[in-house]
Amino acid sequence: MKRTLISDTPKHLGETIRVSGWLNSRRDHGGIIFFDLRDNSEILQIVCPQNLAEGIKEEYVLSIEGEVKKRPANMVNPNLATGEVELKASKIEILAKSETPPFDLKDMKVTLPTLLDHRPFTLRNQRIKAIFKVQQEIVDSFRNTLKKSDFTEFQAPAIVPANAEGGAEVFRIDYYDYDAYLAQSPQLYKQIMVGVFERVFTINKVFRAEPSVTTRHLSEYVSLDLEMGFIDSWQDLMDVCELIIKNIFSDLKNNCKKDLEVLGTVIPQVSEKIPRLKMREAQEIIFERTKRDNRKEPDLEPEDEKEICEFAKEKYGSELIFITHYPTKKRPFYTYADPEDENYTLSFDLLCRGSEVVTGGQRINDYEKVIQNIKKWGNKPEDFSYYLQAFKYGMPPEGGFAIGMERLTKQILDLENIREASVFPRDMERIDLRLSVIHKNEKDKKLGRKKVKK
Amino acid sequence: MKRTLISDTPKHLGETIRVSGWLNSRRDHGGIIFFDLRDNSEILQIVCPQNLAEGIKEEYVLSIEGEVKKRPANMVNPNLATGEVELKASKIEILAKSETPPFDLKDMKVTLPTLLDHRPFTLRNQRIKAIFKVQQEIVDSFRNTLKKSDFTEFQAPAIVPANAEGGAEVFRIDYYDYDAYLAQSPQLYKQIMVGVFERVFTINKVFRAEPSVTTRHLSEYVSLDLEMGFIDSWQDLMDVCELIIKNIFSDLKNNCKKDLEVLGTVIPQVSEKIPRLKMREAQEIIFERTKRDNRKEPDLEPEDEKEICEFAKEKYGSELIFITHYPTKKRPFYTYADPEDENYTLSFDLLCRGSEVVTGGQRINDYEKVIQNIKKWGNKPEDFSYYLQAFKYGMPPEGGFAIGMERLTKQILDLENIREASVFPRDMERIDLRLSVIHKNEKDKKLGRKKVKK
Repeated sequence: MKRTLISDTPKHLGETIRVSGWLNSRRDHGGIIFFDLRDNSEILQIVCPQNLAEGIKEEYVLSIEGEVKKRPANMVNPNLATGEVELKASKIEILAKSETPPFDLKDMKVTLPTLLDHRPFTLRNQRIKAIFKVQQEIVDSFRNTLKKSDFTEFQAPAIVPANAEGGAEVFRIDYYDYDAYLAQSPQLYKQIMVGVFERVFTINKVFRAEPSVTTRHLSEYVSLDLEMGFIDSWQDLMDVCELIIKNIFSDLKNNCKKDLEVLGTVIPQVSEKIPRLKMREAQEIIFERTKRDNRKEPDLEPEDEKEICEFAKEKYGSELIFITHYPTKKRPFYTYADPEDENYTLSFDLLCRGSEVVTGGQRINDYEKVIQNIKKWGNKPEDFSYYLQAFKYGMPPEGGFAIGMERLTKQILDLENIREASVFPRDMERIDLRLSVIHKNEKDKKLGRKKVKK
Repeated sequence: MKRTLISDTPKHLGETIRVSGWLNSRRDHGGIIFFDLRDNSEILQIVCPQNLAEGIKEEYVLSIEGEVKKRPANMVNPNLATGEVELKASKIEILAKSETPPFDLKDMKVTLPTLLDHRPFTLRNQRIKAIFKVQQEIVDSFRNTLKKSDFTEFQAPAIVPANAEGGAEVFRIDYYDYDAYLAQSPQLYKQIMVGVFERVFTINKVFRAEPSVTTRHLSEYVSLDLEMGFIDSWQDLMDVCELIIKNIFSDLKNNCKKDLEVLGTVIPQVSEKIPRLKMREAQEIIFERTKRDNRKEPDLEPEDEKEICEFAKEKYGSELIFITHYPTKKRPFYTYADPEDENYTLSFDLLCRGSEVVTGGQRINDYEKVIQNIKKWGNKPEDFSYYLQAFKYGMPPEGGFAIGMERLTKQILDLENIREASVFPRDMERIDLRLSVIHKNEKDKKLGRKKVKK
């Protein structure tokens, strides 16, 4: 008999069907056993004679045949999409057994590190599953908006020949007889691709050897990147960003209703137009509001980001705000300086609920100016000869931005820790399991060798 | 004035518009200059008085205002979508200059290594652009088919704690104070995710330290991976694979007509049902046809793959064929042995035009059996404790497969070398530029250090 998805069972009232899934819970009521069977679509109550239920425990994988019946009126469960029916089991096949779970999947009162230690199991929790359904909707929405706006997707590489953007936070690879590195961003490649397809985007793993453990950083994350040529103004970039974010919010409302309910999340409030403030203006406002004087700082501190988001919510009814014109010195060599004041750049961050989720800006597109800036930033143009070809042979005015997928998920869902928004988070202390645990158990020297850091 | 895309110009006959793009070519006819202007949508002929065209060379990025006029009947170009019109330029703005290109973009008679050395420029070639538009359509088609079939996408990690599948072809990373590795496939993670979402797919960079240079291998490539639970038979997997491939072919025919024309490609011929042959049967047929006796070999050689594809085309009118039942010893520990003959597995490859493009099969889902097999393959179950959680707490019968994105692109488009199907190919000798060149020019020891191979 062909399997019926649990969400479809109410359509088969009176019929004998086969359902398959995991035993979510069992309740013994004298001679009758009640199973809650869980598949990816829903949960279904199964009424089971004692003899069929023998030895079957939670998380067993079952295939159950039986008749779909209407539940008695006083037994209807309004919280379940299948709450008006139940299956009267006539045959049960055990597809796989399960050992006793380390804790109750439906009510996991354990710390985040413990949840992560048991990730292959704890991912089955309804709330955790909902996070990743929402996350994938964010990615799909990003892609759909851009495809409708003439952007071409391409596959940026992960292995790069050098640490192009500077900074020490890069992972080194043994690449045959040479050194290579993991990409910190697809920046140089997406700029190259503007010379090819004008408007491009790429969805990639990027890698940061963050030397500290925070609730906002991961060593490997997914970057939603775009870059567009023939812009008339750098404000075009913020317009596209605004369109993407608003589409994400409406797609989540339309397509992830159930998941948002499970997570108890309300999508961030956003005004007709997301406010845009210069960094120096933001610092002035923060000073006025808090008397905390960070007006000379080259960037916003985490507490500043929170404060300016509070301000935007109060004043504009928006939980998002663009902060623009970051200082030239603190941005990478390819950032376009403001012609009206070269100390600041035509760049922006988008903050959402107190944290940066997007970074972008216009780029220098003039060949000679890129070369000058590479030198000014202390690098050698010959190390960028590949990238520079894109400018040598004509590059239109262009810019772009990057959205941190996990960061945006965290902010939208108001999660406490970014690790909750990564299905298999990697950080300084963990790759799947804690590194200290992996390397304690590991007897094979080739894998377990503790290296001296250079 | 707002920019008009070149493909839209015929709709604006008689109007004054602004177009932007790269100068594809210029022809001087006495006092009148003809430009071909190229944007991402099309090419347009521009008629230009001498004084406006002064100093403008190929690959300059231009913004041109002018009136859209009908071409004289004898000047119509039937090969161009804009061939019935031309723009009479009244104003030209140079957005960016270009140096003289290293060779003619429209007719690049150079070797592949030279093309790759100049990739940021040569990607602008019409034929090369078409390859990557086709490739992205393949990826989109794969995703769309699976989303319609209840599969959930997830983001598999690139950094892994150990070399799980065995084999030496793995890249080591300095991961803080520890060793880590680049994933050779998302295999273990997609199996874990079957326990969560039942049917999953993931589109990822994977990494193989291939110690040789061939026309079929890359060090970094994109793997289109899926895994599905609650299969009734491993034949279900081939059915899904067949659906995906057929949808890719029809999507390419419908959505990439122009690109396929540019590439001079005909989509592979495929029969109503793709033939399925056991590896031993295939070897027997190859022996009969060629007298080459590889009947005891544990795998098909490249020349065998070509021969059996020839056979399938002649006999079944299909340029694709499934080869099944590869020997247990040659497949990874998680592969499901055929209950009828444990020396062979319920596994398959899909060959297309003489080369393998898909590999997959049923997996062991029983906890105890996975542990046994890990031991049998010479590994320690404790090194797989994370992965094993998925089986410890109930895993349904399941299987899956992986499609090499660049390999499939190569076979569909009949490209000679897989590097042509990777926008930024990485191999033993190249990351963007040839490694020997990067490291010759590189004075900075931290980057340029030649390492002794372990």
